[in-house]
Amino acid sequence: MPTRYFLASGASDGYTSLNAFDGALLQAGIGNTNIVKMSSIVPPHCKLVTSIALPPGAIVPAAYAAITSDVPGEIISAGVAIALPEDENQNGLIMEYSAKGERHRIEETVRNMAIEGMQLRGWKIRDLQTVVSEYQVKRIGATLAAVILWG
Amino acid sequence: MPTRYFLASGASDGYTSLNAFDGALLQAGIGNTNIVKMSSIVPPHCKLVTSIALPPGAIVPAAYAAITSDVPGEIISAGVAIALPEDENQNGLIMEYSAKGERHRIEETVRNMAIEGMQLRGWKIRDLQTVVSEYQVKRIGATLAAVILWG
Amino acid sequence: MPTRYFLASGASDGYTSLNAFDGALLQAGIGNTNIVKMSSIVPPHCKLVTSIALPPGAIVPAAYAAITSDVPGEIISAGVAIALPEDENQNGLIMEYSAKGERHRIEETVRNMAIEGMQLRGWKIRDLQTVVSEYQVKRIGATLAAVILWG
Repeated sequence: MPTRYFLASGASDGYTSLNAFDGALLQAGIGNTNIVKMSSIVPPHCKLVTSIALPPGAIVPAAYAAITSDVPGEIISAGVAIALPEDENQNGLIMEYSAKGERHRIEETVRNMAIEGMQLRGWKIRDLQTVVSEYQVKRIGATLAAVILWG
Repeated sequence: MPTRYFLASGASDGYTSLNAFDGALLQAGIGNTNIVKMSSIVPPHCKLVTSIALPPGAIVPAAYAAITSDVPGEIISAGVAIALPEDENQNGLIMEYSAKGERHRIEETVRNMAIEGMQLRGWKIRDLQTVVSEYQVKRIGATLAAVILWG
Repeated sequence: MPTRYFLASGASDGYTSLNAFDGALLQAGIGNTNIVKMSSIVPPHCKLVTSIALPPGAIVPAAYAAITSDVPGEIISAGVAIALPEDENQNGLIMEYSAKGERHRIEETVRNMAIEGMQLRGWKIRDLQTVVSEYQVKRIGATLAAVILWG
């Protein structure tokens, strides 16, 4: 059961889309770990920290949005939003969204997604945290935003 | 090594396809956990249970089929089939399938997939379990069927 | 933290693309485990071994490339490359690539991807390991190449 989490984001061009994704992970500070994608909950009492020095090669559960593009000049954005409940014994909810388009548009959508998710649960929101990464592609680009769980 | 498993299914409309998927997970009783997708084995001696009260935010390995659609009125179905071997020291096999279409069609396909998988192993089938979730989309819908491992 | 890894590959036709993928996993020797996909690091001091007898149903982190096709006669290939650093206290990097086309073309691309990834880190390469699986589809086929971590 994870006890801490942090937000990370990055963007990069690369030789292939996977290289661009690798560059984005490196810029986000998680490029030398083994990210495992999961759906998308912050456990109760899990604490937000600025960052965690993850051991290289560690297997790390994460919720993330990522997008790649091979259209030079295109603007791509990826964002995550975390809605934390008023009742601290309940879990937080992470939503992910990525698309062509600018930061403000992706941020608005992903915030609304998290708000909707909490409404569906019937839970009031204590705090809403977001991180969005916007990137203009040079040749082949990737951008990502992530919530990393640890503990 | 997981020791118990259960079947779950759900369906929902939502604000986005990810919200619809979140609603389907909630209806399936696994919406407040961190699902990690895996390929698709029931360990030997792993026991079927009705359901497990998973701690919120727990990291939970699961095999699942899911499908989303933004075509109002469309019928979508997702199913999983578990083939268990006669020799209880061997593992079971999970197959997943989702598509446009009705329950009976998806169930037939996913059952055949599990039967084929056991034939490929040269193992006789002791039991074949399936769960299928059919859903008619209102605006943006998702349906899923899952096998959750725990233990 | 994984301490050992091995390379695996396989290919198969099947009743559906998931059955073909299952057959490829079986041929690779990992068809009776629960593979969890991760991005793509070999931890420092993690040792290459020929193969590991994985317990059936074990949850196994892996980096892999896979491709399926339902075009009879089509040639598909999947490959992984591992670049290991001169400084053994740093981690190795795994890259994955799959596409229509022959082994030599996929191998060249995935090697270059790993070389680029190490250049991005500013790390010199001590060793570069690759495994590529090429397959000509009969009806519905899959091929995969994988790095399996264990520990």
